Order: sequence, then C-alpha cells, then structure tokens
Amino acid sequence: MRIAGRHYRSVWVDEEDGWSVRIFDQTRLPWSLEILRLTDAGQVAHAIRSMQVRGAPLIGAVAAYGVVLAMRADPSTAHLDRVCEALGRTRPTAVNLRWALERMRAALHDRPAGRRAAAAYAEAAAIAEDDVETCRRIGAHGLPLLREIAARKAPGEAVKVLTHCNAGWLATVDYGTALSPIYQAHDAGLPVHVWVDETRPRNQGAALTAWELGRHGVPHTVVADNAGGHLMQHGEVDIVIVGTDRVTRRGDVANKIGTYLKALAARDNGVPFWVAMPHSTLDMRVRDGLAEIPIEERDAAEVTELTGRTADGRIETVRVAAEGSPAANPAFDVTPARLVTGLITERGRCEASEAGLLSLYPEKA
Amino acid sequence: MRIAGRHYRSVWVDEEDGWSVRIFDQTRLPWSLEILRLTDAGQVAHAIRSMQVRGAPLIGAVAAYGVVLAMRADPSTAHLDRVCEALGRTRPTAVNLRWALERMRAALHDRPAGRRAAAAYAEAAAIAEDDVETCRRIGAHGLPLLREIAARKAPGEAVKVLTHCNAGWLATVDYGTALSPIYQAHDAGLPVHVWVDETRPRNQGAALTAWELGRHGVPHTVVADNAGGHLMQHGEVDIVIVGTDRVTRRGDVANKIGTYLKALAARDNGVPFWVAMPHSTLDMRVRDGLAEIPIEERDAAEVTELTGRTADGRIETVRVAAEGSPAANPAFDVTPARLVTGLITERGRCEASEAGLLSLYPEKA
Repeated sequence: MRIAGRHYRSVWVDEEDGWSVRIFDQTRLPWSLEILRLTDAGQVAHAIRSMQVRGAPLIGAVAAYGVVLAMRADPSTAHLDRVCEALGRTRPTAVNLRWALERMRAALHDRPAGRRAAAAYAEAAAIAEDDVETCRRIGAHGLPLLREIAARKAPGEAVKVLTHCNAGWLATVDYGTALSPIYQAHDAGLPVHVWVDETRPRNQGAALTAWELGRHGVPHTVVADNAGGHLMQHGEVDIVIVGTDRVTRRGDVANKIGTYLKALAARDNGVPFWVAMPHSTLDMRVRDGLAEIPIEERDAAEVTELTGRTADGRIETVRVAAEGSPAANPAFDVTPARLVTGLITERGRCEASEAGLLSLYPEKA
Repeated sequence: MRIAGRHYRSVWVDEEDGWSVRIFDQTRLPWSLEILRLTDAGQVAHAIRSMQVRGAPLIGAVAAYGVVLAMRADPSTAHLDRVCEALGRTRPTAVNLRWALERMRAALHDRPAGRRAAAAYAEAAAIAEDDVETCRRIGAHGLPLLREIAARKAPGEAVKVLTHCNAGWLATVDYGTALSPIYQAHDAGLPVHVWVDETRPRNQGAALTAWELGRHGVPHTVVADNAGGHLMQHGEVDIVIVGTDRVTRRGDVANKIGTYLKALAARDNGVPFWVAMPHSTLDMRVRDGLAEIPIEERDAAEVTELTGRTADGRIETVRVAAEGSPAANPAFDVTPARLVTGLITERGRCEASEAGLLSLYPEKA
C-alpha cells in the first residue's frame, strides 16, 4: 500500500545489495518510519519476538526470510533444522509461523546444500507473493459484504466497520486481511468509516491501523477497547471485521486479546462478525480452540508501561499502573465458532465450521 | 481507608481553618499524593469536571461541599439555585450528583439566608457520613457472596474477583462500593485476589484501584480491559463486582465504559455479575437505561494521549495514537438488567429488576 504516494511492502529484499532483508520497525510506528536491515536469522528471530514485525501473515513471510539468511550463512541440514526450530519458538500462537517454516523446510530439505540458498530466496519470495495475492482476494471476497450494507443505506452514507488490532497491510506483506475489503471499498468509491479499537496493551489499533488508514486516506476514529459494545448498542457499527492468528477445524478463532469481547457484543446486538482468514492460518490439526491453542503470555511491562510521543517530539516510556502492582498479559483469546458469522478467505466466504471450511478447502479433509 | 497506616477519607473539612474543603487530586495518583484545598464553588466544579474527584458517590459528596462553599460566600436563594444548576452540569451521567444537590437544596431552601452556611456544613457532613455508612453496609451485604465462593474452594485458595474502573474508597467517602466487600473479606482473613481492569481511557483501574488495593495489602493483578473475557473462559474469575453511576427502575446499570462487555463475558461463562449500588445511584424516574441515560462524551485527547511516570520520575504526557487520527470517547455504557446477577445495596441484595428494587426500596414505588 502507499505511504505519501510511494508503494511499499512490509518485507522485501534490499534492492542494492540484493540479499539482505528489509522491514519496518513497527515498534517505532506511528512516530517514525524506520527501515531495518536484517542480515542473519538471529536478527529475524529478534524482530519477530520483539514485535518489530507482527501480524500472523507477515510473521510467516519474515520467518521464511530468516531461513533464507540462515541458508546463505550455512546451508547444512543440521542448520536448517536448528533455525526452523529456533524461529518456530518466537511466537507460540500464530500458526502461519510454523506453516511458513514447514514450507521452507519442505522446499529445501531434499536439495543439495549448495543449492539451498538460491532455492530459499525463491521460496520465500513465493511465500510473500502468495500472501499478497491471498490478501488481494480476501479483499475481493469481503467487498460484497460492505456493498450489501451500503445498498441498504442512503446514498453517500458510510458503512461503519469496527476492527480490532491491526490486520492491515502492516500485518501482511501487502493489502492486509481484515482491512483489505475496506481498502478495496474505499478505492472503489464506497464510503466507509472504521472504528479502530486502540488494542491495549500494545496499541496496534491506535498506532498501526490508524496510521495505515490515515496514510491511505480512509476515514476512521480511534476508540478505547471498552467502547465497542456501547457503539454497537447504539447502532454505530454495521459490521465487525477482524483478522486471525489461527482458525481451528471447527472454526474457533484465535486472535488478539479482546476479540472475544467484541464477538459477544456483536452477537448481543445482531451485528455481523466476520473473520478474514488466509489459508495459512487454518490449523486443521486443532479442533477445540479454547482447550488446544497455546496462548502467549507476554511481558507484564507491556500492560504497566506505555510508549508514546510528547508534545515536543520526544519518545518516552511511562508507567501507568500503580507502583508495585503486578500485571498479567495474555496476548490472544479464542472466539468460539458459534460467535463468528463467517470467514472471509482467498477462496470465498464460508461458515465458521468444519463443513464450511471443507467446502472451500476440501484438500484439507 | 489507610495509606501507610494512617486513616483518610477522600473528602473532608480542613482541620486547621475549619471551613475549606480538602480532597486528593486523583489525577495525580498513583504518582503523587497531593491534597488540594477548595475554597469556592468554582473550584469544586473544576475538581469534578476535571476528575480530580470522580466516582459517583464521591462526586455527590464533593458537590454538596460546593454548595457549602457557595453559601458561605453568598447565602441568597438566587445563588443557591445558580450554584446547584452549575454543579449539576459538571457530569451528566452520575445521578448522585443531582441527588446530592437536591438534598442540599431541600435542606437549605426554606431556611433564612443567615442560617444557610451552618446548615449547609451540617447537611454536607451528613451526606458524607451517610455515604460511609452506606458503603460499610454494602461491604457487609456483599461479603457473604465471597464467603460462599470460598466455601466451595480448598482452604486457603483465593476467591478471584474481577472489577472494572475504580469503585473503591477513592470513589466514595470511605470503604468504596464494589471494593467494600473485598476489603471486608480481606480484613476478615478470607483470601481474595482481584483482577483489576486497567480501564482505558483514564486508567482508573491501573492507577487508582491498584493503588488502593496495594496500600491496603490486598493481592491483585492489573490486566488490559481486553483480557477479562479470556480469564473468564479459563475459570480464572469467580465473580465480577463493579460499581455504578446510575441504576434505573428496571435495573439497567450505567457504569464506566466497558462494563457491558464484561457483563456479556460473565453471562457467556456462567460467572456471577454483581453491581454494588448505593441508594443514591438509584434513579426510579428512568426505566430504559439504553434509551434514556445521557452518556457523557469526554475529550478525545483522553484516548489519544496518556500520562504516566518515566523511569527517572518525571510525569510525562505522551500521544499514543497516530498523528492526525481522530478519537471518540464515550465515558459510560449501559448494562441491561438481564445481564446483571444482582445488586448489592446498603439494605441487602436484590435482583436487578423493578420488583427486586421495590422489595428493598418500597418507599420509591
């Protein structure tokens, strides 16, 4: 998507040296646009763990480039196994990470060591291209939902979408998942307005989603995570669209902590609740999301402290919680399939159920 | 309650001069304990509007002292009417504010001007004493709920309570409403653990509830507002207890934005959801909370900016949201009576319904 008129992806191979990997440091957004250069797998693991890159699809693509950099340094099978293992441990909840690493391993394992680096670049590029195309199609399949809502409104009246966390182009290689239909609607001239949950504790909504939407010119309003239920009670939300880190065989949805609360409010107010799901987040090995998906517990300091920009432009980290009070920080929750109106995938839309998923992904039976 | 071993209330008449009004500047907590001296009704209105004092019961008591200071300066009927009108406009959602002002006006209106100042001091003191006694009794009537849960657990295992915003002693004159049963349980040796919702956008949970509980020695953990549903899904919450700014004739509950989301999660997970209601927050003139209670819309900067303390002790305000992104800030929401397990009042517990309320407050029929 575009920043100040120039097109960017969220991960790419450096054009000058032709081998190192470039990402935005998303922990610095929205205050400054800093491009990092990654030259080994350790840097890639750090970038994922510290959330310089985040968002399930982007994590997968960047992890693939971690394997690339590892193969460039040492293309042995032992190293391949070791790096896939190490990268796989960086974030426990997102299934794309494992999916991307398995795809890389499958593409490289049976090749002679001398050919692995070149094959790795090709495979990682293919993963990134696939992600772009997947997200583009998710947008195309989500767009009719927004058009249907618009058709029931007065001409020019905006379709009011609520989203949680960041499932935009910064969370993928391009387009985004949940935001892809919104960008496509906006670009097609359909008036949309997005309620952006700030998404505590890391504020990916206020910092990243608002930034993306603002740069692309999409009307939006940031709200505290607490506000969504109230907005739905008062008819201010036509549809909720969120991304996901993992969808189970029966359609349970792991996503950023707080998603479940919005799904409950949507159900209570008759608001459709859709989940944008690229195929790489579908985990058919898991059935019961609540019982089976490990939920990452992150550093308590993410809750008690917060970073932002002062009026005179300094970046400061401040403690918000009372001194001495501990905090807990579960990073994801699971929304049971019964609360999900449906899934928007690159192959079309389906019910959040095994039957729905198998209607679009029969090969995964 | 106690701070470093010394007993405080949250509003009092200065012991030295015998007439000015003292409050804590709650916007400075938890970083510093600053006691303000209020000497006229304008300062009182500012303290309420800027949330130097907040919490429905405390707002009522402080507003009463606003009338006191006004009567001391000019005890005319015109001034009495004017100051009640002005103080009544400071916060639209809390009904105690109007209740306290009406009580003051009723106590003063028919008196000769020369006796109004002394009568005002007496009436405001009576409002404060009533609030203390009301909160003490709410604690006594809530305590059995915690004892029942403890009785089903292994000896020594903590009762896990979740609360939202601050309904502790800082929100009242003493004891608190939702926290009163918790303090009484803790003081009686019943093990309790409190999940403290940080309560964006103003962080009254992380800043005030955590501070209060910490000073009193009650075990607690701060969580993002997004986390409560996840905790309930995993059996980590035995009971939710919150305060309220207004309860309607049929039992709808206006409280801090986000309360409704927690009530939905409690219902979805079979967790009891109780509301601590002092009589002064009961508004029998209103039936349908969603349609009839005005919801205060506060400054967007409360969402986009945030104040805290840096590691080296400076208090800084930082912007969290992307530059140029607007924000909305509804301060309260309404939880429909159907989601409320019951009300804890100074007269006992009742169902959140007209019949339940009339069983305890027959004089309000």
